[in-house]
Amino acid sequence: VSTRAGILVTGTEVLSGIIADRNGPWLSERLRERGVELAHIVVVGDRPADVRAALDFMSREGLDLVITSGGLGPTADDLTVEVVAGFAGRPMRLDAALEERIWAILERLRAHWRGLDADALRAANRKQAMVPDGAVVLEPVGTAPGLIVPPLDGAAGPIVLVLPGPPGELQPMWETAASMAPLRALLEGAGALEQRIVRIMGIPESEIARSLREMEADGVPMGRLEITTCLRRGEIEVATVFAPDATDDYEAFEAALVAAQGDRVFSRDGSTIDEIVAGLLLGPPVVSVAVAESCTGGLMAGRLTERAGSSAYVLGGATVYSNEAKVALAGVPEELITRHGAVSPEVAAALADGARARFGAAVGIGITGIAGPDGGTKEKPVGTVCLSVAGESSRVDRTVRLPGDRAAVRDRTTTVAMHLLRRLLLESR
Amino acid sequence: VSTRAGILVTGTEVLSGIIADRNGPWLSERLRERGVELAHIVVVGDRPADVRAALDFMSREGLDLVITSGGLGPTADDLTVEVVAGFAGRPMRLDAALEERIWAILERLRAHWRGLDADALRAANRKQAMVPDGAVVLEPVGTAPGLIVPPLDGAAGPIVLVLPGPPGELQPMWETAASMAPLRALLEGAGALEQRIVRIMGIPESEIARSLREMEADGVPMGRLEITTCLRRGEIEVATVFAPDATDDYEAFEAALVAAQGDRVFSRDGSTIDEIVAGLLLGPPVVSVAVAESCTGGLMAGRLTERAGSSAYVLGGATVYSNEAKVALAGVPEELITRHGAVSPEVAAALADGARARFGAAVGIGITGIAGPDGGTKEKPVGTVCLSVAGESSRVDRTVRLPGDRAAVRDRTTTVAMHLLRRLLLESR
Repeated sequence: VSTRAGILVTGTEVLSGIIADRNGPWLSERLRERGVELAHIVVVGDRPADVRAALDFMSREGLDLVITSGGLGPTADDLTVEVVAGFAGRPMRLDAALEERIWAILERLRAHWRGLDADALRAANRKQAMVPDGAVVLEPVGTAPGLIVPPLDGAAGPIVLVLPGPPGELQPMWETAASMAPLRALLEGAGALEQRIVRIMGIPESEIARSLREMEADGVPMGRLEITTCLRRGEIEVATVFAPDATDDYEAFEAALVAAQGDRVFSRDGSTIDEIVAGLLLGPPVVSVAVAESCTGGLMAGRLTERAGSSAYVLGGATVYSNEAKVALAGVPEELITRHGAVSPEVAAALADGARARFGAAVGIGITGIAGPDGGTKEKPVGTVCLSVAGESSRVDRTVRLPGDRAAVRDRTTTVAMHLLRRLLLESR
Repeated sequence: VSTRAGILVTGTEVLSGIIADRNGPWLSERLRERGVELAHIVVVGDRPADVRAALDFMSREGLDLVITSGGLGPTADDLTVEVVAGFAGRPMRLDAALEERIWAILERLRAHWRGLDADALRAANRKQAMVPDGAVVLEPVGTAPGLIVPPLDGAAGPIVLVLPGPPGELQPMWETAASMAPLRALLEGAGALEQRIVRIMGIPESEIARSLREMEADGVPMGRLEITTCLRRGEIEVATVFAPDATDDYEAFEAALVAAQGDRVFSRDGSTIDEIVAGLLLGPPVVSVAVAESCTGGLMAGRLTERAGSSAYVLGGATVYSNEAKVALAGVPEELITRHGAVSPEVAAALADGARARFGAAVGIGITGIAGPDGGTKEKPVGTVCLSVAGESSRVDRTVRLPGDRAAVRDRTTTVAMHLLRRLLLESR
């Protein structure tokens, strides 16, 4: 029998769509790593009856563990602890030592923000130190403590792990909680699962589905593998979870997948295109890179500089939106624009060369296209993008028509450019 | 009695955290606009028993409407329609006319992708044309039809609205569904609520909580307002929902909020800082802008060019990561970097001037800082960012220390720059 868990995300601002839930997905990955099957993520507002109904639902479903996030703050609508205490049948009590530890944290915060009201802080302090009797206290990362609330002795029901809402607090506290009784015992009983990810560029999702069906029909052993495919930023991700004793099955499956998809498979160890490109640029030797981009408007440079340490190889970029800027900043010959249009393979190549020359970079990336919603023509509809990646003696060019809205076209374009950059770097090694 | 709804998001890839759910938040906003109270968002994997358990839970909670997203595709793990049919007690039947309409769509798609298997397509086609008896069919936006599945005549239970997973298909289909019986009648009975948003820059979330408490203590009428505050990209958003007859209460509340927060309130009509800045730049007269940025690595130009039509005022940008690039591309005097360091108000100002000069822009934005995780010093810790926005005869400078990791510092920096740009544009009007 597998260990099953549910995640209960509380907060009207999450339920109402004002902020995105980052905790559900993060906790989901942590549970999978530890071999716990996630049954549901439930998002509820700050209404006690709705929070309680969700807890009762998960309990009725026979879950072994429920993780809550949010509702631990100092205000009146932060009510998770009280509802969980009621659910577990444990009365609330003041933990005086905890109250003092929280106060010490608040004192430090007061130094940063002038004019905070001391009485309001004390009241908040006391509220956050009220805990269900018999719960394990997890020390605050911010100001709110977390809790492990087991069912009453002899009673059925899930262990409830109560975590704060801010991801910066929740994530370290999860690690602490996982090492503490009684949660540790539950997780140890689950038995870790393996997860592997294969990434593929340049095919639609329906084709990967078909490819998997054919493999299954051909007798590739897939019965003990939980395979999920998804399209993300223009790439197909094939994520597979399996018990350690199904490793041989997985190896056979992966080999069949690679045989079917060939060199469109660019990653078999979970690494992303960004990680692969960063590794190639870091060398040794280090390969310097610069960008001259139009329709992506800075996002290509932004993506290349996303990683810590990217200053070792990114020299910079030019966002050349206007034709004047293409000429002045990236050295594109004006007559090239007149003759072929700003969106053309010729101008993309000139942008790549200009980026190399202006920044003194080993590799230049040139991007020009029509992100939309306006500016499309019959010959060059919205989504048409010309890309060029140029080294000293090599070049990779591509013209693509990307689907989706303006944001999608801009984002997908940076993915295509990352793949062209990978190809050039691999070829010139 | 208010009309209550639940959202059921299906998909192992969402549950497992591989892709983020965009439909729950989007549908949540649509429901709020129409005065429907959202009770829960439940995310489940592609397991029939878990999908059914969530439907039963929502039905037991007495919800009037359940909206499902996902699980309408052609593959075997797309099982939403079957589970909903079982839940509603309606047998499945083939809708032959629908099958032909879907086939016409698939024929067009085949033209784009060579080598698609015709038999597999036909099987997928037939699966997607199976509908619960008595359901209202919503025409496909992609290839999957949606459904409105009412309870059996005389039976209790929610109306189930079945929508596809891709947001590009779900969103237009929601609009269609909302205008069709029996959903239209349900929504008309709900009675629309008003929603207003006030945005505030430059205070911590705890201070807005305190401000609201003080207003309440001062007798500001807040009992009939549902007020949610949240910190988003460095700004505080105060979202308030109320029935139309509480409009006077809201006006009094908003006035008190503005009185308390002064000119830190930058938006009272829901407009975002990006919309406000775009409006100011569009004029008339149009004000052209260019960027020279270091630590944000292209994200500032990327943010300014996010909007359709931004080419009217964005001339371009330079990402000047290396000191050489700062000198060569943005005209920063080398001795300024030597004397004050690359991260200094002086270099930020020179970058802003350089952006103006190089691109011939009316306004230049200069950004230099330490995004981390490395590169911080005691005097200039990680998160230190110097910004400058320069017009022909005016300038706004700011040095900030931003919290968070590399991605947060880079993102928050662009927010600070947007606000400085707004200030300069307002002052020079």
